[in-house]
Amino acid sequence: MDTAWRQKIEETIDRALAEDCAWGDVTTQALIPPNALGKATAVAKSPGVLAGLEVARTVFERVDHSLTFRALLADGDRVQAGARMAVVEGRVASILRAERVALNFLQRLSGIASETSRYVEAVRGTGVRIVDTRKTTPGLRFLEKYAIRAGGGHNHRVHLGDGILVKDNHLAALRARGIGLKEAVALARKNAPHTLKVEVEVTSVEEAAEAAEAGADIVMLDNMTVDDMRRAVGRVRGRVLLEASGGITLGNIRAVAETGVDLISVGALTHSVKALDISLELEF
Amino acid sequence: MDTAWRQKIEETIDRALAEDCAWGDVTTQALIPPNALGKATAVAKSPGVLAGLEVARTVFERVDHSLTFRALLADGDRVQAGARMAVVEGRVASILRAERVALNFLQRLSGIASETSRYVEAVRGTGVRIVDTRKTTPGLRFLEKYAIRAGGGHNHRVHLGDGILVKDNHLAALRARGIGLKEAVALARKNAPHTLKVEVEVTSVEEAAEAAEAGADIVMLDNMTVDDMRRAVGRVRGRVLLEASGGITLGNIRAVAETGVDLISVGALTHSVKALDISLELEF
Amino acid sequence: MDTAWRQKIEETIDRALAEDCAWGDVTTQALIPPNALGKATAVAKSPGVLAGLEVARTVFERVDHSLTFRALLADGDRVQAGARMAVVEGRVASILRAERVALNFLQRLSGIASETSRYVEAVRGTGVRIVDTRKTTPGLRFLEKYAIRAGGGHNHRVHLGDGILVKDNHLAALRARGIGLKEAVALARKNAPHTLKVEVEVTSVEEAAEAAEAGADIVMLDNMTVDDMRRAVGRVRGRVLLEASGGITLGNIRAVAETGVDLISVGALTHSVKALDISLELEF
Amino acid sequence: MDTAWRQKIEETIDRALAEDCAWGDVTTQALIPPNALGKATAVAKSPGVLAGLEVARTVFERVDHSLTFRALLADGDRVQAGARMAVVEGRVASILRAERVALNFLQRLSGIASETSRYVEAVRGTGVRIVDTRKTTPGLRFLEKYAIRAGGGHNHRVHLGDGILVKDNHLAALRARGIGLKEAVALARKNAPHTLKVEVEVTSVEEAAEAAEAGADIVMLDNMTVDDMRRAVGRVRGRVLLEASGGITLGNIRAVAETGVDLISVGALTHSVKALDISLELEF
Amino acid sequence: MDTAWRQKIEETIDRALAEDCAWGDVTTQALIPPNALGKATAVAKSPGVLAGLEVARTVFERVDHSLTFRALLADGDRVQAGARMAVVEGRVASILRAERVALNFLQRLSGIASETSRYVEAVRGTGVRIVDTRKTTPGLRFLEKYAIRAGGGHNHRVHLGDGILVKDNHLAALRARGIGLKEAVALARKNAPHTLKVEVEVTSVEEAAEAAEAGADIVMLDNMTVDDMRRAVGRVRGRVLLEASGGITLGNIRAVAETGVDLISVGALTHSVKALDISLELEF
Amino acid sequence: MDTAWRQKIEETIDRALAEDCAWGDVTTQALIPPNALGKATAVAKSPGVLAGLEVARTVFERVDHSLTFRALLADGDRVQAGARMAVVEGRVASILRAERVALNFLQRLSGIASETSRYVEAVRGTGVRIVDTRKTTPGLRFLEKYAIRAGGGHNHRVHLGDGILVKDNHLAALRARGIGLKEAVALARKNAPHTLKVEVEVTSVEEAAEAAEAGADIVMLDNMTVDDMRRAVGRVRGRVLLEASGGITLGNIRAVAETGVDLISVGALTHSVKALDISLELEF
Repeated sequence: MDTAWRQKIEETIDRALAEDCAWGDVTTQALIPPNALGKATAVAKSPGVLAGLEVARTVFERVDHSLTFRALLADGDRVQAGARMAVVEGRVASILRAERVALNFLQRLSGIASETSRYVEAVRGTGVRIVDTRKTTPGLRFLEKYAIRAGGGHNHRVHLGDGILVKDNHLAALRARGIGLKEAVALARKNAPHTLKVEVEVTSVEEAAEAAEAGADIVMLDNMTVDDMRRAVGRVRGRVLLEASGGITLGNIRAVAETGVDLISVGALTHSVKALDISLELEF
Repeated sequence: MDTAWRQKIEETIDRALAEDCAWGDVTTQALIPPNALGKATAVAKSPGVLAGLEVARTVFERVDHSLTFRALLADGDRVQAGARMAVVEGRVASILRAERVALNFLQRLSGIASETSRYVEAVRGTGVRIVDTRKTTPGLRFLEKYAIRAGGGHNHRVHLGDGILVKDNHLAALRARGIGLKEAVALARKNAPHTLKVEVEVTSVEEAAEAAEAGADIVMLDNMTVDDMRRAVGRVRGRVLLEASGGITLGNIRAVAETGVDLISVGALTHSVKALDISLELEF
Repeated sequence: MDTAWRQKIEETIDRALAEDCAWGDVTTQALIPPNALGKATAVAKSPGVLAGLEVARTVFERVDHSLTFRALLADGDRVQAGARMAVVEGRVASILRAERVALNFLQRLSGIASETSRYVEAVRGTGVRIVDTRKTTPGLRFLEKYAIRAGGGHNHRVHLGDGILVKDNHLAALRARGIGLKEAVALARKNAPHTLKVEVEVTSVEEAAEAAEAGADIVMLDNMTVDDMRRAVGRVRGRVLLEASGGITLGNIRAVAETGVDLISVGALTHSVKALDISLELEF
Repeated sequence: MDTAWRQKIEETIDRALAEDCAWGDVTTQALIPPNALGKATAVAKSPGVLAGLEVARTVFERVDHSLTFRALLADGDRVQAGARMAVVEGRVASILRAERVALNFLQRLSGIASETSRYVEAVRGTGVRIVDTRKTTPGLRFLEKYAIRAGGGHNHRVHLGDGILVKDNHLAALRARGIGLKEAVALARKNAPHTLKVEVEVTSVEEAAEAAEAGADIVMLDNMTVDDMRRAVGRVRGRVLLEASGGITLGNIRAVAETGVDLISVGALTHSVKALDISLELEF
Repeated sequence: MDTAWRQKIEETIDRALAEDCAWGDVTTQALIPPNALGKATAVAKSPGVLAGLEVARTVFERVDHSLTFRALLADGDRVQAGARMAVVEGRVASILRAERVALNFLQRLSGIASETSRYVEAVRGTGVRIVDTRKTTPGLRFLEKYAIRAGGGHNHRVHLGDGILVKDNHLAALRARGIGLKEAVALARKNAPHTLKVEVEVTSVEEAAEAAEAGADIVMLDNMTVDDMRRAVGRVRGRVLLEASGGITLGNIRAVAETGVDLISVGALTHSVKALDISLELEF
Repeated sequence: MDTAWRQKIEETIDRALAEDCAWGDVTTQALIPPNALGKATAVAKSPGVLAGLEVARTVFERVDHSLTFRALLADGDRVQAGARMAVVEGRVASILRAERVALNFLQRLSGIASETSRYVEAVRGTGVRIVDTRKTTPGLRFLEKYAIRAGGGHNHRVHLGDGILVKDNHLAALRARGIGLKEAVALARKNAPHTLKVEVEVTSVEEAAEAAEAGADIVMLDNMTVDDMRRAVGRVRGRVLLEASGGITLGNIRAVAETGVDLISVGALTHSVKALDISLELEF
């Protein structure tokens, strides 16, 4: 993990340690001699894909720089239940103080990577990219976007400033002023920074075609049927990138991918995460 | 929402807005005149229990103090799909900039409240309290603990400093030094602040009895069978509070509650959240 | 100024006030009664284009919320020497404490806007956009990019994350690994977010053509002669946007613009700023 | 660079890196393997005096602690075009991410030192000190005051708390209350901390004499002619320090210095900086 | 000192250094060559108990990481006047910059530990615990609570969240709503987290008995006479912990302790601290 | 209280509220309905001089902006036991949450003002100024320096940057390099900013005379006998300001003042504060 990124992550970790009062662990202070040494292993309790090992390492280091953390696996690795993923050694009191926060990061990020990898598997061979959305947990966007990549996915916009995405509510606001989709695309071209592509959200084959003609770089097919998506692909492919969005599940994603779209975005990858079950086991 | 709490929440919101670059929404800047006015309604897309309306209000206000946010419902209210929960009015550009972050908070917190309420319903009449754990999202502990209460649950420790909880890893570390459960409780009593109760995690009926005799105030029955829990209740009830923990689901919680325990803690309430589906709809 | 942006600016202002110890103005405390009232006018001492009036207003308000600041002109307005641009009224002691910091912002930002407007004037009628660079003053990027727009310019990348710009040093690093310009563009396409355009810096007509063929969206002609730029335009125009860069002055910019490039970037707009002369005059 | 100062500078650097999103350099991430190593040299493109090499070093270290930065020259050194001033080695990706921010600091600070040294040269032999003002770039005061010293100048007040300077606006405010220059000096003496000298700004020979008689420690001759300055020196020298201020240029500073004043303050040293041209060249 | 605690302390130290402008020590800069080396010893000038040696070490390290600080004694040690407690070696300029802030911490914390130890001595043999209050210096609570422990005392609540303490003003507010002490205890039991004990402040023997019957875990006897305290002990001992509070001095504490109470809280330990006299002596 | 100062104070207050977890007052949350209203009065329990009423107001406002705080007296006012100094009205829960932190500030600052006024009284008529030192509580320097002024005292240096004070340790370090007091003063004159006076600490009449001859502006007579101080006054008065320092008590200060020194500095005013006894009484 390079230094600039590390600083970013340390702030997030420090906040998590602060809200857990990791410096005020009255139980451990009452029971464990400050210099007692020990060793603990992080073990997967269910299968999945890892993400966040370096974050967990940093949690332990922020609590006590004298702890040594040895990763046995790497982010992106696929694990089975029982897999040992990392070993931390040093002051037991420090390990216990850091445990919960380290696991809270590791379980959530691995949960995201695991689910992402299921979607990526489901479209294998189609050439389609699984991308995330801005529906991330407040405060954790960079880490969650990282977990998406660890699971084999790609990132959509990191924030409102690194892409132009004309959404339904933008179009509604413009329509109320008598401005249609075509003029919206022209406005975006004219006013937005020249380094960003213009993406437009549409809900029908006609709109998709209209957006492509208006000069959009990317067209998002929102909540359209598989049939309509296929038709849209037929109409505009080659001229724009096509992104399928809305209501995507592991059950229907293969069919969506086979329509020929280029990208499929899945909000649930980050807005509805199931933590990967991981525990930390002290050994003596 | 009182002022001290508001300050705490504003910091969390400001970080979320910063990571979304809400001040740099190039799409909206390119398309929407700064002074265009509009109105948007937050609408539930699936049934659940609300939490976070005041947080959402604060997101809109942080982005633009001139926006007015009117809550139509309150945190803790049960909604059906289609329910209108709040209306925000003012500059359209500001509404669009705040939209995603406001929804990210509202959907997650309402997801927690909704799931909590399902567990609370499942034990209705037994007198058992559903409590949360420290398995919360890093950075969002206070908000998630609030959502638990909005869903009818109660909070366990907020952090490592407001309760003594002697866990498996503490006991393992002590055992390695020749110190048993009984002495552990005595140590905790002697060294810890006198204002805090002592809770001990046990895995068998015998240990539960031993902890109670040693003077623990609360005994956590970890991953025990319903039968064993019932036996533990028989042995120690009245002398200590009993908390069931580990592997609790909506499928088995009623049986656990009927063993006579006082509290049931459920980590999944916060570590594996399914966002409540909520959208913001601009109207003209 | 909307609220989210205001927060961003307030942090910058608060740092400036802190380094000037605006709360510890021993001279004013020794001389001026805290409740003495007065009025001061900001006056241009040389001609230029204004930028930063709202920043100046915020400086006065941060020092003392009871001050009233009335802008007589607006950012982007052209002024002559002697023009009165704003009036601030209220406690004299507060006005004196805020004076220097307010002027430091206003003079610098107006200096940038003024110089930008000279470049914009110089290319009037050619359709060319004057754009800035990342050669900004550390800590003031957003304000300086704002001043560029106030002067009639456009912004290039705000930061390293909102555009792909393959520069000479990237190409050198790739060449050392046996990777040429063509493959560099392909790599960028494959690995970078799909929402961003790919810009490539080149130093010859041949490279410009190669970049366009490789699929770059934008080609930066770096330090090329006017003749070569004209040739490059002839080779690739229509397929890519062309940006002229390097060694641009008021003396040669018209000739550069007339080669047919789309954009001209000028680092000196922000790296070598001449403050606009503005003074604050107390009246009684 | 000692540790306390380093901490102060690191905050300034971290803000600069944050606004440049140095952790989110999509171009470098797309093109450069994280572990590719390289070497880059900072080279002067025009003659001047260096300042900020340690700041540049810190930028590289903040981005990646594994980079090694070797200064070939030191702050205060005079360079010719082509001079190699520092070499940085390590991960190419890190060098590229840090490059712009490091140069932004180094070019600006060296620009200030270079211009200061020109003024210092111009008064060589007269015993006059060139001093700066509070007309510095918001957020960079300490670094810019440092650059002044690197160029051979001296610092005037760092902020409003480390000297008493009764300026025109203070005197105007006092006059409006019937308080003259003499009483102003007495008030300052009486109310201000006893550890600070009292300086008064005057605009005529008479006022200079009046200030000296009133007990001022330093008299600032503001925008006076060379002849008047010479007369003022004749009247008060020996009793007070005399500072010339206002409208000083390289063209007239020698004449001003020869009037016998002790100090000459030059606002343009920091309010209108021309960056020294420096580039970073990757080698393989 | 472990890492998490160190971070907490470093923030406090950095603020203290900042308000002392330790980076801007004009005297030392004017007089002491930056690389002159030296050695200084911290010496007690009056007898007491030490606390804060690790804090002092950290102050020196924050100012200059190259300083070496060697503790000759440890926190909790009793010293006589003349005792040498620590030696710091390295750059003289750094030692001088850090001196005052290091001593300000060390003298205050040792003052607290010294006074605490006098109270602890006074009750030796009675089994009573001396505890502190929340009447601490704003910003220094954690350090002051630490100093209490160094002096042999114990901590009461660290903050409003780690214990339930129903005080006179709570009871007054409840009485105004027709709610008596008994119901107050019941309310606290019902609504407060189950991990915290319930303490009630009372002013008479009757109220003490009522609180015990109502189920309080701890009863605070506030400003009661020694006789009444003895009677209260007679009535409720064994059922609750008893804490004496209010008007405790070294003159009366032995008598209070002998009533049989379990805890005695003394606000003056932190609200009225007499610094231990310690000086730092440079040697050559 | 003006705005810039208010911001400075709010940061200090917010830290104090944070360490007291004012947002997490479990007792009040369990017992007091959020909307119950009430009124509380701050009452002096012993005589003294007030300081910090505006700080206390700000504490209440930071906790809950809807509280109204009415000062009945002002900072600097002398009070007797029983005096009502301020009334706060609004939500009882908010008053209770803010109570302790507000009193912690008010009692400490009033304790400083009260003690300062005793020293000021003791020298009344002599023309001597009582000044403070840098021996303040870490984190509270500005507030404590304010309380000194509220008690009728004056401030010495606020920090290391607003005065040159050559102390014993500086002189020792210089002596080790063969540099005497005279050259030390000359060095300070030459190298330090021209806006600051030069003060030198001496321990004998001879040194005092030497310092005055060397051109010091202020001479600090450290730990000298009253007789020696009188002699020093005889030798140097009129040429320098004289400051008595070290071992000053209420018992000896009058004699010291009558030696003819100009200033007497008293470290105990801030390093050994006795809080003024103040309580907050809820009324219904």
